[in-house]
Amino acid sequence: MAKISPLAPKGGFPKLPVIEGVEFAAIEAGVRYSGRTDVMLAQLCAGTSVAGVFTKSATRAAPVLDCQAKLGSNTDGGAAIIVNSGNANAFTGSKGIEAVTAVTKMVAEVLDVPQDRVFSSSTGVIGEPLAFDRITAKVSELANNLSPARIQDAAAAIMTTDTFAKGASAQVDTEDGVVKIAGIAKGSGMIAPDMATMLVYIFTDAKIAQPLLQEMLAKLTDKTFNCITVDSDTSTSDTLLLAATGKSGAEITAAQGPFYDALHGVMLDLAHQVVKDGEGATKFVEVRVTGAGTDKDAHKVGMSIANSPLVKTAVAGEDPNWGRVVMAVGKSGAKADRDLLSIRFGDVVVADKGWVSPAYDEAAAAQHMKGDELLIAVDLGIGSGQATVWTCDLTHAYIEINADYRS
Amino acid sequence: MAKISPLAPKGGFPKLPVIEGVEFAAIEAGVRYSGRTDVMLAQLCAGTSVAGVFTKSATRAAPVLDCQAKLGSNTDGGAAIIVNSGNANAFTGSKGIEAVTAVTKMVAEVLDVPQDRVFSSSTGVIGEPLAFDRITAKVSELANNLSPARIQDAAAAIMTTDTFAKGASAQVDTEDGVVKIAGIAKGSGMIAPDMATMLVYIFTDAKIAQPLLQEMLAKLTDKTFNCITVDSDTSTSDTLLLAATGKSGAEITAAQGPFYDALHGVMLDLAHQVVKDGEGATKFVEVRVTGAGTDKDAHKVGMSIANSPLVKTAVAGEDPNWGRVVMAVGKSGAKADRDLLSIRFGDVVVADKGWVSPAYDEAAAAQHMKGDELLIAVDLGIGSGQATVWTCDLTHAYIEINADYRS
Repeated sequence: MAKISPLAPKGGFPKLPVIEGVEFAAIEAGVRYSGRTDVMLAQLCAGTSVAGVFTKSATRAAPVLDCQAKLGSNTDGGAAIIVNSGNANAFTGSKGIEAVTAVTKMVAEVLDVPQDRVFSSSTGVIGEPLAFDRITAKVSELANNLSPARIQDAAAAIMTTDTFAKGASAQVDTEDGVVKIAGIAKGSGMIAPDMATMLVYIFTDAKIAQPLLQEMLAKLTDKTFNCITVDSDTSTSDTLLLAATGKSGAEITAAQGPFYDALHGVMLDLAHQVVKDGEGATKFVEVRVTGAGTDKDAHKVGMSIANSPLVKTAVAGEDPNWGRVVMAVGKSGAKADRDLLSIRFGDVVVADKGWVSPAYDEAAAAQHMKGDELLIAVDLGIGSGQATVWTCDLTHAYIEINADYRS
Repeated sequence: MAKISPLAPKGGFPKLPVIEGVEFAAIEAGVRYSGRTDVMLAQLCAGTSVAGVFTKSATRAAPVLDCQAKLGSNTDGGAAIIVNSGNANAFTGSKGIEAVTAVTKMVAEVLDVPQDRVFSSSTGVIGEPLAFDRITAKVSELANNLSPARIQDAAAAIMTTDTFAKGASAQVDTEDGVVKIAGIAKGSGMIAPDMATMLVYIFTDAKIAQPLLQEMLAKLTDKTFNCITVDSDTSTSDTLLLAATGKSGAEITAAQGPFYDALHGVMLDLAHQVVKDGEGATKFVEVRVTGAGTDKDAHKVGMSIANSPLVKTAVAGEDPNWGRVVMAVGKSGAKADRDLLSIRFGDVVVADKGWVSPAYDEAAAAQHMKGDELLIAVDLGIGSGQATVWTCDLTHAYIEINADYRS
């Protein structure tokens, strides 16, 4: 069992509110791991809207393709989400579809919901056939154990190399009454932008039409999960589903306002937790880019810094090596002018207008680097484009975890 | 002193032929290191053509900008190349230009060559002012020690985190007689495509007009130095200079034929040596991509595999984890079809047309991974585009080297 990330939330798994209309169960199916749960089931009441965003990988896994095809299904019947860890059912050819079909069919039968409303995800090793019969054999038992209170069990069952289960929630006062949001996530390696993230499931009892739900999810993904990176590698399975049961009776009709902001907060919290459980992470780094020609350029620069192995090893070594930040700005492909560039580590101004600041205090910068939550701020000095991205350091533990993951 | 890379050429530094018209010297100037040489000087005879390719970084160092401005200078006078290690003179604002000007002026005076024919490079730490007076103070002594035989000394003086000096050569029979090529290189981290490489200097006694020399260099860079990556980070100082003295009397008039092929061989040899001295490298990996829609797509896929931290850690762990190769193909942005993809490790067919091959022998694949020169071959099955790129593994030593490079 891996040591829990030093960046894990201090209080352990947060207390999440019950979302009316959703019930959870988790079970040991022995897909790959033993002695731990590895399958979770969520049942969603009739009328639930489901929105999703997925990896853009050209080698997407079978369950991802299946989910994408099902997003437009109508909401009259109930719905369900089933997720296994240990095996990603990716690059498994026609057997991949066979497995997804068998699992979603079994869930549809047992829960009496339409099969085109059963969403599935798989996470773990790529390229090995999924022993789906181990999952289908457990669906009835899962169904018998469903409970509105078991979201933490669900969060634990979907972990792979994660060192802690991830949850976040919010409550929002609306004109129609209180609305609740609760979400869970997993993911610690193969985390990069241009996709959702590993696996994230968010539930709310607000009533939200599917097209609006999808719009909110897509917009907020660009500000949250698409702004994190652990190692620049993009999974073939990344899936983010958002389900709105409507059971609170309160309807949300616009992609703005308190509910939208609260959803943003929950998604950002989960995205940060994913980074904080990055494989081998000991530092959480916010990279804030301002003064770029465009927001897109700012994002490029941010990701170039956040993905640079040399920046990430410098962070691991607590070295305020701002020269590597300059290098990462230079290679990003974004418009930049060396002589307008300014850099801060935390509050310490390191470089100003293209050269080391006269007031630069290396001891103060080094002190900032000793913290476990760091800020690298870069101002390009050429426009008003900005972006913030989050990453972690690159340590020996990342290599330990990944040099023998399969063995 | 770092241990010599296990991938270093077995026989040590190769015996390089003397190139008539070029003389070398190296010296301890104490720019940053002590107890080793850190400045090299090469004097080139009158009439020498010089071609160059450089980093495309937006934060290019001052010496790079200076070299680029000087490439078109006429060849009547002699020429010189001066290079220091220890400090990159990058992101040093107006002081950067000042340093380049002082160093190239001193060389021009001492060697009596035009200042616009003195090319300089600096490699090492970014963002600290270059103590150029330590270099200018040594130019006369360097000039007094010039010798046609000292190319190995020059190769040693430009090393930073390199663990071995890099050289390669060729001799070509032409209608006008024998032509010789000799080159040296340095570079072990911050190595990525979209640029030349760290520092490479190649000399030939062939007579070649500057525009043709530049054309040959640019074309061959795309097949050699632009096809290697150690860590996906692009230096602000990368410089590749090719000088043709003409002293053999043999003139080359086309970018094809035996001389062109021999130059290709020398450049590929040096590029491979740079990868083999990649920081922390224990495995040299050739990634061969075929069947892509275009050569450009094949290169994208190759680089996506070669830069993936998950692929590189699997290689370090001798794990034939082909699932990560699938992942890297998927995220590359190139056109790919999961169900047409085939993968080999060495001669072992791992995956065929989208799924694990019925004949796949994991033990044989694992055996291949134990070697120190590996092949990962990917066929996309959709076209005739192809590319080959070279990389190394990602090991603990990379992190050790880079987490405390400055301290």
